[in-house]
Amino acid sequence: MDKDNMKISMAVIRRLPKYHRYLRDLLEKDIKRISSKELSNIMGLTASQIRQDLNNFGGFGQQGYGYNVEALYEEIEKILGLDKQYNTIIVGAGNLGQAIANYTNFEKAGFLPKCMFDINPKLIGLKIRDIQIMDADHMEEYIRRNDIAIGIICTPKEQAQSVADRLVKCNIQGIWNFAPVDLNVPDHIILENVHLSESLFTLSYLLNHRDEL
Amino acid sequence: MDKDNMKISMAVIRRLPKYHRYLRDLLEKDIKRISSKELSNIMGLTASQIRQDLNNFGGFGQQGYGYNVEALYEEIEKILGLDKQYNTIIVGAGNLGQAIANYTNFEKAGFLPKCMFDINPKLIGLKIRDIQIMDADHMEEYIRRNDIAIGIICTPKEQAQSVADRLVKCNIQGIWNFAPVDLNVPDHIILENVHLSESLFTLSYLLNHRDEL
Repeated sequence: MDKDNMKISMAVIRRLPKYHRYLRDLLEKDIKRISSKELSNIMGLTASQIRQDLNNFGGFGQQGYGYNVEALYEEIEKILGLDKQYNTIIVGAGNLGQAIANYTNFEKAGFLPKCMFDINPKLIGLKIRDIQIMDADHMEEYIRRNDIAIGIICTPKEQAQSVADRLVKCNIQGIWNFAPVDLNVPDHIILENVHLSESLFTLSYLLNHRDEL
Repeated sequence: MDKDNMKISMAVIRRLPKYHRYLRDLLEKDIKRISSKELSNIMGLTASQIRQDLNNFGGFGQQGYGYNVEALYEEIEKILGLDKQYNTIIVGAGNLGQAIANYTNFEKAGFLPKCMFDINPKLIGLKIRDIQIMDADHMEEYIRRNDIAIGIICTPKEQAQSVADRLVKCNIQGIWNFAPVDLNVPDHIILENVHLSESLFTLSYLLNHRDEL
Protein backbone atom coordinates (compact mmCIF):
# COMPACT_ATOMS: atom_id res chain seq x y z
CA MET A 1 0.00 0.00 0.00
CA ASP A 2 1.36 3.42 -0.87
CA LYS A 3 0.42 5.50 2.14
CA ASP A 4 1.44 8.71 0.38
CA ASN A 5 -1.40 8.32 -2.10
CA MET A 6 -4.09 7.74 0.46
CA LYS A 7 -7.09 10.03 0.22
CA ILE A 8 -7.21 10.59 3.94
CA SER A 9 -3.95 11.21 5.75
CA MET A 10 -2.73 8.85 8.45
CA ALA A 11 -2.70 11.81 10.85
CA VAL A 12 -6.46 12.21 10.43
CA ILE A 13 -7.03 8.46 10.65
CA ARG A 14 -5.04 8.26 13.88
CA ARG A 15 -7.19 11.02 15.38
CA LEU A 16 -10.44 9.15 14.68
CA PRO A 17 -10.10 6.74 17.64
CA LYS A 18 -9.52 9.78 19.82
CA TYR A 19 -12.80 11.35 18.64
CA HIS A 20 -14.44 8.00 19.29
CA ARG A 21 -13.11 7.93 22.86
CA TYR A 22 -14.11 11.51 23.67
CA LEU A 23 -17.58 11.10 22.18
CA ARG A 24 -18.11 7.93 24.21
CA ASP A 25 -17.17 9.84 27.36
CA LEU A 26 -19.67 12.57 26.44
CA LEU A 27 -22.38 9.95 25.84
CA GLU A 28 -21.63 8.41 29.24
CA LYS A 29 -22.14 11.86 30.74
CA ASP A 30 -25.45 12.06 28.86
CA ILE A 31 -24.36 15.07 26.80
CA LYS A 32 -26.52 15.23 23.66
CA ARG A 33 -24.84 17.87 21.55
CA ILE A 34 -21.58 19.74 21.43
CA SER A 35 -20.16 22.59 19.38
CA SER A 36 -16.86 22.17 17.56
CA LYS A 37 -15.55 24.89 19.92
CA GLU A 38 -16.49 22.90 23.04
CA LEU A 39 -15.19 19.66 21.53
CA SER A 40 -11.95 21.43 20.65
CA ASN A 41 -11.54 22.58 24.26
CA ILE A 42 -11.82 19.12 25.74
CA MET A 43 -9.78 17.41 23.03
CA GLY A 44 -6.98 19.95 22.80
CA LEU A 45 -7.44 20.46 19.05
CA THR A 46 -8.54 23.64 17.30
CA ALA A 47 -12.20 23.93 16.25
CA SER A 48 -11.09 24.38 12.65
CA GLN A 49 -8.99 21.19 12.86
CA ILE A 50 -12.04 19.27 14.09
CA ARG A 51 -14.24 20.63 11.29
CA GLN A 52 -11.55 19.77 8.72
CA ASP A 53 -11.05 16.28 10.13
CA LEU A 54 -14.75 15.46 10.11
CA ASN A 55 -15.28 17.02 6.69
CA ASN A 56 -13.11 14.19 5.32
CA PHE A 57 -16.02 11.92 6.14
CA GLY A 58 -18.86 14.17 5.12
CA GLY A 59 -19.15 16.75 7.88
CA PHE A 60 -21.87 15.81 10.40
CA GLY A 61 -22.07 19.25 12.02
CA GLN A 62 -24.97 21.67 11.64
CA GLN A 63 -24.38 25.41 11.58
CA GLY A 64 -25.56 26.90 14.87
CA TYR A 65 -26.33 23.51 16.40
CA GLY A 66 -22.98 21.77 16.59
CA TYR A 67 -22.68 18.01 16.61
CA ASN A 68 -25.26 15.49 17.73
CA VAL A 69 -23.02 13.45 20.03
CA GLU A 70 -24.75 10.09 19.57
CA ALA A 71 -25.07 10.42 15.80
CA LEU A 72 -21.43 11.46 15.42
CA TYR A 73 -20.29 8.64 17.73
CA GLU A 74 -22.21 6.10 15.67
CA GLU A 75 -20.83 7.45 12.40
CA ILE A 76 -17.27 7.24 13.71
CA GLU A 77 -17.95 3.71 14.96
CA LYS A 78 -18.92 2.76 11.42
CA ILE A 79 -15.98 4.59 9.83
CA LEU A 80 -13.60 2.76 12.18
CA GLY A 81 -15.29 -0.56 11.41
CA LEU A 82 -16.29 -0.97 15.07
CA ASP A 83 -19.82 -1.93 14.08
CA LYS A 84 -18.43 -5.32 13.02
CA GLN A 85 -16.72 -8.21 14.78
CA TYR A 86 -13.26 -9.62 14.10
CA ASN A 87 -11.92 -12.99 15.12
CA THR A 88 -8.39 -12.59 16.43
CA ILE A 89 -5.62 -14.87 17.67
CA ILE A 90 -2.79 -13.94 20.01
CA VAL A 91 0.57 -15.45 19.12
CA GLY A 92 2.87 -15.54 22.13
CA ALA A 93 1.15 -16.26 25.46
CA GLY A 94 3.66 -14.60 27.76
CA ASN A 95 2.77 -11.72 30.03
CA LEU A 96 1.92 -9.27 27.31
CA GLY A 97 -0.15 -11.79 25.37
CA GLN A 98 -2.00 -12.68 28.54
CA ALA A 99 -2.56 -9.03 29.38
CA ILE A 100 -4.14 -8.49 25.98
CA ALA A 101 -6.23 -11.66 26.31
CA ASN A 102 -7.50 -10.36 29.64
CA TYR A 103 -8.30 -6.89 28.33
CA THR A 104 -12.06 -7.25 27.88
CA ASN A 105 -12.42 -3.77 26.39
CA PHE A 106 -11.04 -5.02 23.09
CA GLU A 107 -13.63 -7.81 23.10
CA LYS A 108 -16.41 -5.33 23.87
CA ALA A 109 -15.26 -3.30 20.86
CA GLY A 110 -15.67 -6.35 18.62
CA PHE A 111 -12.18 -7.87 18.58
CA LEU A 112 -12.81 -11.42 19.76
CA PRO A 113 -9.75 -13.31 21.02
CA LYS A 114 -10.51 -16.85 19.86
CA CYS A 115 -7.28 -18.62 20.72
CA MET A 116 -3.68 -18.07 21.85
CA PHE A 117 -0.61 -19.88 20.55
CA ASP A 118 2.75 -20.56 22.11
CA ILE A 119 5.69 -22.95 21.81
CA ASN A 120 6.20 -23.28 25.58
CA PRO A 121 4.88 -26.68 26.79
CA LYS A 122 4.19 -25.17 30.22
CA LEU A 123 1.70 -22.74 28.68
CA ILE A 124 0.09 -25.01 26.07
CA GLY A 125 -3.25 -26.27 27.37
CA LEU A 126 -3.78 -23.45 29.85
CA LYS A 127 -6.67 -21.01 29.53
CA ILE A 128 -6.75 -17.24 29.99
CA ARG A 129 -10.38 -16.48 30.81
CA ASP A 130 -11.97 -18.93 28.36
CA ILE A 131 -9.23 -18.52 25.75
CA GLN A 132 -7.20 -21.67 25.18
CA ILE A 133 -3.44 -21.59 24.66
CA MET A 134 -2.66 -24.03 21.85
CA ASP A 135 0.56 -25.41 20.41
CA ALA A 136 1.86 -23.01 17.77
CA ASP A 137 2.19 -25.98 15.40
CA HIS A 138 -1.59 -25.95 15.04
CA MET A 139 -1.83 -22.25 14.22
CA GLU A 140 -2.26 -22.50 10.44
CA GLU A 141 -4.98 -25.10 10.70
CA TYR A 142 -6.81 -23.08 13.35
CA ILE A 143 -6.70 -19.88 11.31
CA ARG A 144 -8.09 -21.60 8.23
CA ARG A 145 -10.93 -23.23 10.15
CA ASN A 146 -11.96 -20.25 12.26
CA ASP A 147 -12.10 -17.26 9.94
CA ILE A 148 -9.41 -15.32 11.78
CA ALA A 149 -9.04 -11.73 10.57
CA ILE A 150 -6.33 -10.36 12.85
CA GLY A 151 -3.17 -11.90 14.28
CA ILE A 152 -1.74 -10.23 17.38
CA ILE A 153 2.00 -10.87 17.66
CA CYS A 154 3.30 -10.87 21.24
CA THR A 155 6.39 -13.02 20.70
CA PRO A 156 10.01 -12.03 21.29
CA LYS A 157 11.49 -10.10 18.38
CA GLU A 158 13.44 -13.13 17.12
CA GLN A 159 10.25 -15.06 16.34
CA ALA A 160 8.09 -12.19 15.10
CA GLN A 161 9.00 -12.20 11.41
CA SER A 162 8.54 -15.94 10.99
CA VAL A 163 5.17 -15.73 12.79
CA ALA A 164 4.17 -12.87 10.48
CA ASP A 165 5.20 -14.92 7.42
CA ARG A 166 3.03 -17.80 8.61
CA LEU A 167 0.06 -15.49 9.27
CA VAL A 168 0.42 -13.99 5.79
CA LYS A 169 0.39 -17.46 4.19
CA CYS A 170 -2.92 -18.15 5.95
CA ASN A 171 -4.47 -15.04 4.41
CA ILE A 172 -4.80 -13.14 7.63
CA GLN A 173 -6.04 -9.58 6.93
CA GLY A 174 -4.24 -7.61 9.59
CA ILE A 175 -1.37 -7.91 12.04
CA TRP A 176 -1.15 -6.06 15.34
CA ASN A 177 2.52 -6.31 16.25
CA PHE A 178 3.92 -5.80 19.75
CA ALA A 179 7.36 -7.26 19.02
CA PRO A 180 10.09 -4.61 18.87
CA VAL A 181 10.89 -5.15 15.22
CA ASP A 182 9.66 -3.77 11.90
CA LEU A 183 8.02 -6.65 10.07
CA ASN A 184 8.11 -7.19 6.32
CA VAL A 185 4.64 -8.04 5.05
CA PRO A 186 3.04 -7.76 1.59
CA ASP A 187 1.24 -4.52 0.75
CA HIS A 188 -2.24 -6.02 1.07
CA ILE A 189 -1.69 -6.94 4.73
CA ILE A 190 -2.55 -4.20 7.22
CA LEU A 191 0.23 -3.90 9.77
CA GLU A 192 -0.06 -1.82 12.92
CA ASN A 193 2.81 -1.69 15.40
CA VAL A 194 2.91 -0.92 19.10
CA HIS A 195 6.55 -0.28 19.90
CA LEU A 196 6.51 0.17 23.68
CA SER A 197 10.26 0.80 23.92
CA GLU A 198 10.00 3.64 21.45
CA SER A 199 7.34 5.28 23.58
CA LEU A 200 9.43 4.85 26.76
CA PHE A 201 12.58 6.16 25.06
CA THR A 202 10.66 9.20 23.79
CA LEU A 203 9.63 9.86 27.40
CA SER A 204 13.28 9.52 28.37
CA TYR A 205 14.36 12.00 25.71
CA LEU A 206 11.76 14.53 26.84
CA LEU A 207 12.77 14.11 30.51
CA ASN A 208 16.36 14.90 29.57
CA HIS A 209 15.57 17.88 27.37
CA ARG A 210 12.87 19.60 29.38
CA ASP A 211 14.80 22.85 29.42
CA GLU A 212 14.80 22.99 25.64
CA LEU A 213 11.13 22.18 25.11
CA MET B 1 22.91 22.58 22.73
CA ASP B 2 22.77 26.10 21.24
CA LYS B 3 19.64 28.10 20.55
CA ASP B 4 19.44 27.05 16.91
CA ASN B 5 19.19 23.43 18.01
CA MET B 6 16.62 24.01 20.71
CA LYS B 7 13.42 23.27 18.86
CA ILE B 8 13.44 19.77 17.52
CA SER B 9 10.12 18.53 16.23
CA MET B 10 8.29 15.69 17.94
CA ALA B 11 8.38 13.80 14.63
CA VAL B 12 12.19 13.79 14.73
CA ILE B 13 12.23 12.92 18.44
CA ARG B 14 9.90 9.99 17.86
CA ARG B 15 12.21 8.67 15.14
CA LEU B 16 15.26 8.65 17.45
CA PRO B 17 14.27 5.42 19.26
CA LYS B 18 13.85 3.82 15.84
CA TYR B 19 17.41 4.81 14.86
CA HIS B 20 18.52 3.43 18.21
CA ARG B 21 16.81 0.11 17.54
CA TYR B 22 18.17 -0.28 14.00
CA LEU B 23 21.70 0.68 15.03
CA ARG B 24 21.61 -1.87 17.84
CA ASP B 25 20.55 -4.54 15.33
CA LEU B 26 23.48 -3.53 13.09
CA LEU B 27 25.87 -3.71 16.06
CA GLU B 28 24.56 -7.18 16.92
CA LYS B 29 25.36 -8.19 13.33
CA ASP B 30 28.85 -6.74 13.82
CA ILE B 31 28.39 -4.12 11.10
CA LYS B 32 30.90 -1.31 11.72
CA ARG B 33 29.81 1.38 9.32
CA ILE B 34 26.85 2.22 7.14
CA SER B 35 26.04 4.86 4.54
CA SER B 36 22.92 7.00 4.90
CA LYS B 37 21.72 5.28 1.69
CA GLU B 38 22.04 1.80 3.21
CA LEU B 39 20.51 2.94 6.49
CA SER B 40 17.64 4.49 4.57
CA ASN B 41 16.99 1.18 2.77
CA ILE B 42 16.66 -0.84 5.95
CA MET B 43 14.72 1.84 7.86
CA GLY B 44 12.31 2.81 5.11
CA LEU B 45 13.25 6.51 5.28
CA THR B 46 14.95 8.57 2.58
CA ALA B 47 18.70 9.16 2.88
CA SER B 48 18.06 12.89 2.92
CA GLN B 49 15.57 12.47 5.79
CA ILE B 50 18.19 10.58 7.78
CA ARG B 51 20.84 13.24 7.17
CA GLN B 52 18.36 15.97 8.14
CA ASP B 53 17.26 14.11 11.29
CA LEU B 54 20.81 13.53 12.50
CA ASN B 55 21.91 17.06 11.60
CA ASN B 56 19.56 18.24 14.36
CA PHE B 57 22.03 16.73 16.78
CA GLY B 58 25.24 17.72 15.07
CA GLY B 59 25.57 15.38 12.12
CA PHE B 60 27.84 12.40 12.90
CA GLY B 61 28.31 11.31 9.27
CA GLN B 62 31.53 11.65 7.30
CA GLN B 63 31.46 12.36 3.57
CA GLY B 64 32.45 9.22 1.68
CA TYR B 65 32.57 7.10 4.82
CA GLY B 66 29.02 7.12 6.12
CA TYR B 67 28.23 6.55 9.78
CA ASN B 68 30.33 4.73 12.34
CA VAL B 69 27.59 2.44 13.71
CA GLU B 70 28.90 2.13 17.25
CA ALA B 71 29.70 5.84 17.62
CA LEU B 72 26.29 6.85 16.27
CA TYR B 73 24.54 4.31 18.50
CA GLU B 74 26.32 5.67 21.55
CA GLU B 75 25.50 9.25 20.64
CA ILE B 76 21.83 8.41 20.23
CA GLU B 77 21.90 6.54 23.55
CA LYS B 78 23.12 9.73 25.18
CA ILE B 79 20.65 11.97 23.35
CA LEU B 80 17.81 9.69 24.49
CA GLY B 81 19.13 9.70 28.05
CA LEU B 82 19.66 5.93 27.93
CA ASP B 83 23.13 6.28 29.43
CA LYS B 84 21.43 6.98 32.78
CA GLN B 85 19.17 5.03 35.13
CA TYR B 86 15.66 5.92 36.24
CA ASN B 87 13.78 4.56 39.22
CA THR B 88 10.20 3.81 38.24
CA ILE B 89 7.05 2.60 39.94
CA ILE B 90 4.12 0.83 38.33
CA VAL B 91 0.70 1.89 39.60
CA GLY B 92 -1.90 -0.78 38.92
CA ALA B 93 -0.65 -4.36 39.26
CA GLY B 94 -3.18 -6.04 36.97
CA ASN B 95 -2.17 -7.93 33.86
CA LEU B 96 -0.72 -4.99 32.00
CA GLY B 97 1.20 -3.74 35.04
CA GLN B 98 2.56 -7.24 35.59
CA ALA B 99 3.50 -7.57 31.93
CA ILE B 100 5.50 -4.35 32.15
CA ALA B 101 7.11 -5.44 35.42
CA ASN B 102 8.16 -8.66 33.73
CA TYR B 103 9.54 -6.94 30.64
CA THR B 104 13.24 -7.05 31.47
CA ASN B 105 14.23 -5.10 28.35
CA PHE B 106 13.07 -1.88 30.00
CA GLU B 107 15.26 -2.65 33.00
CA LYS B 108 18.23 -3.38 30.74
CA ALA B 109 17.69 0.02 29.13
CA GLY B 110 17.94 1.70 32.54
CA PHE B 111 14.31 1.95 33.66
CA LEU B 112 14.34 0.16 37.00
CA PRO B 113 10.95 -0.98 38.31
CA LYS B 114 11.37 -0.47 42.05
CA CYS B 115 7.87 -1.17 43.27
CA MET B 116 4.27 -1.73 42.18
CA PHE B 117 1.14 -0.35 43.83
CA ASP B 118 -2.43 -1.55 43.86
CA ILE B 119 -5.60 -1.23 45.93
CA ASN B 120 -6.56 -4.92 45.56
CA PRO B 121 -5.83 -6.80 48.85
CA LYS B 122 -5.35 -10.01 46.85
CA LEU B 123 -2.40 -8.46 45.00
CA ILE B 124 -0.80 -6.46 47.83
CA GLY B 125 2.18 -8.36 49.23
CA LEU B 126 2.80 -10.42 46.10
CA LYS B 127 5.99 -10.10 44.09
CA ILE B 128 6.51 -9.97 40.33
CA ARG B 129 10.10 -11.13 39.84
CA ASP B 130 11.61 -9.31 42.84
CA ILE B 131 9.26 -6.34 42.58
CA GLN B 132 6.92 -6.00 45.53
CA ILE B 133 3.26 -5.00 45.12
CA MET B 134 2.49 -2.52 47.90
CA ASP B 135 -0.70 -0.91 49.14
CA ALA B 136 -1.39 2.22 47.09
CA ASP B 137 -1.84 4.12 50.37
CA HIS B 138 1.94 3.99 50.82
CA MET B 139 2.74 5.33 47.35
CA GLU B 140 3.55 8.93 48.29
CA GLU B 141 5.88 7.95 51.09
CA TYR B 142 7.63 5.42 48.86
CA ILE B 143 8.17 7.91 46.05
CA ARG B 144 9.65 10.50 48.41
CA ARG B 145 12.03 8.00 49.99
CA ASN B 146 13.21 6.27 46.82
CA ASP B 147 13.99 8.97 44.30
CA ILE B 148 11.37 7.81 41.80
CA ALA B 149 11.61 9.60 38.44
CA ILE B 150 8.86 7.93 36.42
CA GLY B 151 5.39 6.70 37.33
CA ILE B 152 3.85 4.10 35.03
CA ILE B 153 0.05 4.20 35.19
CA CYS B 154 -1.62 0.86 34.45
CA THR B 155 -4.88 1.47 36.31
CA PRO B 156 -8.39 1.51 34.83
CA LYS B 157 -9.28 4.85 33.29
CA GLU B 158 -11.46 5.86 36.26
CA GLN B 159 -8.47 5.92 38.63
CA ALA B 160 -5.84 7.29 36.25
CA GLN B 161 -6.34 11.04 36.79
CA SER B 162 -6.31 10.82 40.59
CA VAL B 163 -3.17 8.65 40.44
CA ALA B 164 -1.57 11.23 38.13
CA ASP B 165 -2.50 14.04 40.55
CA ARG B 166 -0.87 12.15 43.40
CA LEU B 167 2.29 11.48 41.36
CA VAL B 168 2.52 15.16 40.43
CA LYS B 169 2.28 16.20 44.09
CA CYS B 170 5.26 13.93 44.86
CA ASN B 171 7.34 15.72 42.24
CA ILE B 172 7.55 12.81 39.87
CA GLN B 173 9.31 13.88 36.63
CA GLY B 174 7.51 11.81 34.06
CA ILE B 175 4.36 9.73 33.62
CA TRP B 176 4.03 6.80 31.22
CA ASN B 177 0.28 6.36 30.92
CA PHE B 178 -1.42 3.19 29.66
CA ALA B 179 -4.92 4.13 30.85
CA PRO B 180 -7.26 5.03 27.97
CA VAL B 181 -7.71 8.63 29.02
CA ASP B 182 -5.96 11.94 28.39
CA LEU B 183 -4.52 13.08 31.69
CA ASN B 184 -4.24 16.67 32.84
CA VAL B 185 -0.81 17.35 34.26
CA PRO B 186 1.20 20.57 34.73
CA ASP B 187 3.48 21.61 31.88
CA HIS B 188 6.69 20.66 33.68
CA ILE B 189 5.61 17.00 33.94
CA ILE B 190 6.54 14.88 30.92
CA LEU B 191 3.55 12.78 29.90
CA GLU B 192 3.77 9.97 27.37
CA ASN B 193 0.68 7.94 26.49
CA VAL B 194 0.28 4.44 25.11
CA HIS B 195 -3.31 4.24 23.94
CA LEU B 196 -3.63 0.61 22.87
CA SER B 197 -7.26 0.95 21.78
CA GLU B 198 -6.36 3.79 19.45
CA SER B 199 -3.77 1.61 17.78
CA LEU B 200 -6.23 -1.30 17.44
CA PHE B 201 -8.97 0.98 16.08
CA THR B 202 -6.56 2.44 13.53
CA LEU B 203 -5.86 -1.12 12.39
CA SER B 204 -9.59 -1.67 12.17
CA TYR B 205 -10.06 1.47 10.06
CA LEU B 206 -7.30 0.42 7.67
CA LEU B 207 -8.75 -3.10 7.35
CA ASN B 208 -12.09 -1.61 6.38
CA HIS B 209 -10.71 0.91 3.91
CA ARG B 210 -8.08 -1.13 2.14
CA ASP B 211 -9.64 -0.41 -1.24
CA GLU B 212 -9.20 3.32 -0.71
CA LEU B 213 -5.62 3.17 0.53
